[in-house]
Amino acid sequence: MSDFVIVNEVGPRDGLQSQGKTLSIEERLLMIDALLDSGIRSIEAGSFVSPKAVPQMAGTGELFGLLPMTDAVDYSALVPNLRGYELALAAGVRSVAVVLSATETMNQRNINMSLEQATDVCAALMQRARQDGVQARAYVAVAFECPFEGLTPPPVVEYLSQRMFESGADKVIIADTIGAANPRSVRQVLERLDSAGMARQLSCHFHDTRGMALANVLAALEWGVREFDSSIGGLGGCPFSPGATGNLATEDLVLMLAGMGLRTGIEPLALVDVVKRVQALTGTPLGGHSYRWLERQAGKRQGVSHA
Amino acid sequence: MSDFVIVNEVGPRDGLQSQGKTLSIEERLLMIDALLDSGIRSIEAGSFVSPKAVPQMAGTGELFGLLPMTDAVDYSALVPNLRGYELALAAGVRSVAVVLSATETMNQRNINMSLEQATDVCAALMQRARQDGVQARAYVAVAFECPFEGLTPPPVVEYLSQRMFESGADKVIIADTIGAANPRSVRQVLERLDSAGMARQLSCHFHDTRGMALANVLAALEWGVREFDSSIGGLGGCPFSPGATGNLATEDLVLMLAGMGLRTGIEPLALVDVVKRVQALTGTPLGGHSYRWLERQAGKRQGVSHA
Repeated sequence: MSDFVIVNEVGPRDGLQSQGKTLSIEERLLMIDALLDSGIRSIEAGSFVSPKAVPQMAGTGELFGLLPMTDAVDYSALVPNLRGYELALAAGVRSVAVVLSATETMNQRNINMSLEQATDVCAALMQRARQDGVQARAYVAVAFECPFEGLTPPPVVEYLSQRMFESGADKVIIADTIGAANPRSVRQVLERLDSAGMARQLSCHFHDTRGMALANVLAALEWGVREFDSSIGGLGGCPFSPGATGNLATEDLVLMLAGMGLRTGIEPLALVDVVKRVQALTGTPLGGHSYRWLERQAGKRQGVSHA
Repeated sequence: MSDFVIVNEVGPRDGLQSQGKTLSIEERLLMIDALLDSGIRSIEAGSFVSPKAVPQMAGTGELFGLLPMTDAVDYSALVPNLRGYELALAAGVRSVAVVLSATETMNQRNINMSLEQATDVCAALMQRARQDGVQARAYVAVAFECPFEGLTPPPVVEYLSQRMFESGADKVIIADTIGAANPRSVRQVLERLDSAGMARQLSCHFHDTRGMALANVLAALEWGVREFDSSIGGLGGCPFSPGATGNLATEDLVLMLAGMGLRTGIEPLALVDVVKRVQALTGTPLGGHSYRWLERQAGKRQGVSHA
């Protein structure tokens, strides 16, 4: 099995969209520059949602026109619907992601659609992206538990994932939107998806609300998953899901993977500087569980290089 | 494989001994009362070390004479040497633990003995405890990495564990004293101990310094380990090991085990009240990664019961 793991940084989208402070396009570019400096090469850079609903993501089209290193970096953008998709396409986006919540109530409350309608909309977007030669990614959100309906049945996650793949998705991201997964429920879902031949085309998106994100990553690694979302310093959460706080911090993920001998292309100690720069830009105190330890190590190394 | 996991609470010893504030015997008993209220039934209650070296543990003999529910709770005490062991025996202690560091330098620096001398001392104490009908536990400390010597070779951990079992130890606790283990290194050590037939008699003691404690617990569970140390609210660390901060928080451990369908006899939400009571006693801000979420859930439940 591959020893390379893709770390998809979602701070510039999932992280920023829940912040009180709205960053300028220039500040968002500075954040992305900081991320690139650590070796990160997969970034969810923004979303094409209504700037009225999510002002933090206004100007994502302009941002995409200014992104550095576009040949070396897999930049993606979230698109909520066909209009968003067309804006993304016009802005030169080459990788789009849709979010499909796995329960009826979550769809009704968030986007005023039934689960069936939402599934059809996302399937159509995946088909369209495939036709246009755009990389197509589909999040299956609240894949473990829904704040309104409770535990999500794994067969539903399987069905929705299958639909997305059949419609043209290159990747399905199993998302624990409210941080309710545990290693057993991760195994249950992934075992089912693996039987259906999907596990190795999956990514996982875990929140650290209950402190289990890294344990869940470990469970997913064991089922062959080799891509994970994370957010620098743990920035963000989902503003629409009650109780969803704390994205898995990129530095925690990278440090564990490095310790386990898995390659990511990202230097753990370099993430200390990234956290500091993003903290300065957002004005939010940041740092995952490993941050204080990493900071101490980075300080020591600097001490040596100055000696 | 058993679905019951023993959670051994080390807050009253490992936690308190690193605190600036020294608790009175009465306060230490109040802390233990709080722990018992949540269902915890295995507690490292104190140590018989020199009160000059560790004033926080002074009066442990007196404490043992006052412990509640002694028939239902597995109380243990750390003993550094024969004198400590005899004091423990005189105080009615029925379960003792020794700490054997796995490297030469750690032993030299901490107790001014060679690794061989320290091993002999611990082996003799295990033998003596076995003769006296006292439960005998041996920590193998810095089992993954030593702050002075770097990575600890797994064969050394195997040898020391074997020596302790042969000398009469009922249980060996593999301790990641500086929080340097990762799921791969945990597997490497446990695979080796499992081949030698020891894995199911082991307990593990993880620190959360790098945020990986729960992932390490998961790796150990997979190798059949069914006992773990943890400290309420993450209280403590090791004052003698540079960089050792952050015990695995009991509430994080219990919440993950409960989510995975493993039984501990401990009610996760009840730990919120325990954290609050121990916080008031120690004057230290406490709480593991899941604490804020648990606190919110406990608040909701209380809201319902008052409605």
